[in-house]
Amino acid sequence: MNQNLGKASVKLQRPVYILNSGSIVGTKEGQGPLGLLFDMVGSDDMFGCESWEEAESSLQKSAVQLALEKAKVKAEDVKFIFAGDLLGQSIATSFGISTYQIPLLGVYGACSTCGESLTVGVMTIAGGFADRVVCVTSSHFASAEKEFRFPLEYGNQRPLSATWTVTGGGAFVLGNEEALSAYGEKPRARIMGMTVGKIVDYGLKDSMNMGACMAPAAASTLEQHFVDFGSQPEDYDKIITGDLGKVGQKVLIDLMKEKGYDISEQHMDCGIEIYDGEVQDTHAGGSGCGCSAVTLSAYILKQLEEGNWKKVLFMPTGALLSKTSFNEGKSVPGIAHALVLET
Amino acid sequence: MNQNLGKASVKLQRPVYILNSGSIVGTKEGQGPLGLLFDMVGSDDMFGCESWEEAESSLQKSAVQLALEKAKVKAEDVKFIFAGDLLGQSIATSFGISTYQIPLLGVYGACSTCGESLTVGVMTIAGGFADRVVCVTSSHFASAEKEFRFPLEYGNQRPLSATWTVTGGGAFVLGNEEALSAYGEKPRARIMGMTVGKIVDYGLKDSMNMGACMAPAAASTLEQHFVDFGSQPEDYDKIITGDLGKVGQKVLIDLMKEKGYDISEQHMDCGIEIYDGEVQDTHAGGSGCGCSAVTLSAYILKQLEEGNWKKVLFMPTGALLSKTSFNEGKSVPGIAHALVLET
Repeated sequence: MNQNLGKASVKLQRPVYILNSGSIVGTKEGQGPLGLLFDMVGSDDMFGCESWEEAESSLQKSAVQLALEKAKVKAEDVKFIFAGDLLGQSIATSFGISTYQIPLLGVYGACSTCGESLTVGVMTIAGGFADRVVCVTSSHFASAEKEFRFPLEYGNQRPLSATWTVTGGGAFVLGNEEALSAYGEKPRARIMGMTVGKIVDYGLKDSMNMGACMAPAAASTLEQHFVDFGSQPEDYDKIITGDLGKVGQKVLIDLMKEKGYDISEQHMDCGIEIYDGEVQDTHAGGSGCGCSAVTLSAYILKQLEEGNWKKVLFMPTGALLSKTSFNEGKSVPGIAHALVLET
Repeated sequence: MNQNLGKASVKLQRPVYILNSGSIVGTKEGQGPLGLLFDMVGSDDMFGCESWEEAESSLQKSAVQLALEKAKVKAEDVKFIFAGDLLGQSIATSFGISTYQIPLLGVYGACSTCGESLTVGVMTIAGGFADRVVCVTSSHFASAEKEFRFPLEYGNQRPLSATWTVTGGGAFVLGNEEALSAYGEKPRARIMGMTVGKIVDYGLKDSMNMGACMAPAAASTLEQHFVDFGSQPEDYDKIITGDLGKVGQKVLIDLMKEKGYDISEQHMDCGIEIYDGEVQDTHAGGSGCGCSAVTLSAYILKQLEEGNWKKVLFMPTGALLSKTSFNEGKSVPGIAHALVLET
């Protein structure tokens, strides 16, 4: 049984199933094009909490609760939870999910965290170490602006290349064949393989243009994926990045052309889908760990369930910066992890 | 093949080997009781860099290089690297290991990160997804004080319950049977199983007494480990926590007594071993991701190699706080992950 594929990939002998999932978003996301698809939309972005950080924690808590309920699974029947977020020392996670008392393996991949948590979660199940795991991640516009740029109270101007951090949390219950039987319903999708990304640093330093910073990492992972799996863009109904936005999308398509792949037909970006850029003043698009997580839960899995798409490559993208690294004049390296999802 | 043990554990059907490892530390650690055992000791704590954060990145880079050289492995033959640190958004990792171009899965478990990275790395190999992986983590006294408490320039006083963040990086090359054959030498140890911890929050809020904050998490994981494996304290030559220090050690031993286990004979703490508290003015002991990592590499694995110990439980402990959570008046939850190491 060789699941060890190529330089950076894993090909599963038996699929791991996304039994079900949950999504919760803020008001702006609720007003966007995908607004009606989310499981829950907050009436305001504090979600009944006293700080932005607590509000983000509540997103993880609610997303997990939704996913567990929809998957008809109790917290005590989940072996591990893979979780992370954008805040320093992942405090949205530490204060969000402790109530479930599920053994925690914390992950950090900036905005690629949804892809990373699913990747490690899938390996845990496919390796026979767990029947069920939960993967959860979140981001919050206000806590992210405070963490990386300026507190909202400063009222700073944002350039057109900037993205808007999605306020949202997405959680996924993964299971093996046995867990699927116990569930007794159709899974939302099955995961057949993954490609793990490496750090790619083109030396870009603009934290207000993270799409361009992350696009080279997306191109690197995508090329490696095609090589490892012997596949081509046409093999996927969609190739979906996390939060490149409009600027990063152009860069990715160009970089892939240079590498000999035309993905202009298949490419889709969660950050572009989640807002109406014309009306919502979100500039280049959405970003944040929550962006790809809630779009996967609410929109991508729905398209797979309805048979509109049969096979997609889901590839969240992350910008590996902190305010300290930015203030010390460092570049913004990127990373991206890809998963093959099928109906 | 059932590797899925109990509520929170994994028992390996075939061992995963620590082929070799590398450790690098700062001057204070070099002057401590384990000083002569480390692979490399810096002549000053900047390690030739221009900022504390860069210095910490260089610790990860050097530790990985040492481990790869000692394990006679090239970076391109490593499938995945599991890495993390204490700085916001794990920048010591992002700027430390990119040069190796190994697909990265970032982990965060505060000072338990060494245990977490090994846990996930082991599952990746035991699941058949990789032949070789590297696990690396670091901490740096100056970057940690700046990140969590006060910049060194403030010259603040530290209470006796405070621990001293270890300046150090430790890296481990893990491999399967095949990788061991290719290596052709005796591995440093073999890993037989793991117990993953959950978030434990007793409501303590003192970031200057992290030993007491983490001890309940260590007790929780240890009890779960004994239950899952059907084992007792006597089954281990040592039960080794990461960085509880002198205050946390007392709390752990007392908590375990309440649970019906006497671990006073077996317990050892990396944070107590690494400094001479009487002479080095380190108060309760050492802490930080690097503390357990360098002590494992330089001291614990050596004892196993020499046959002084046959079987130990290695359990790094983490305090899940950030300066934001601390300033917002939140508690300091803990987490701990345990691994069974044998000769």
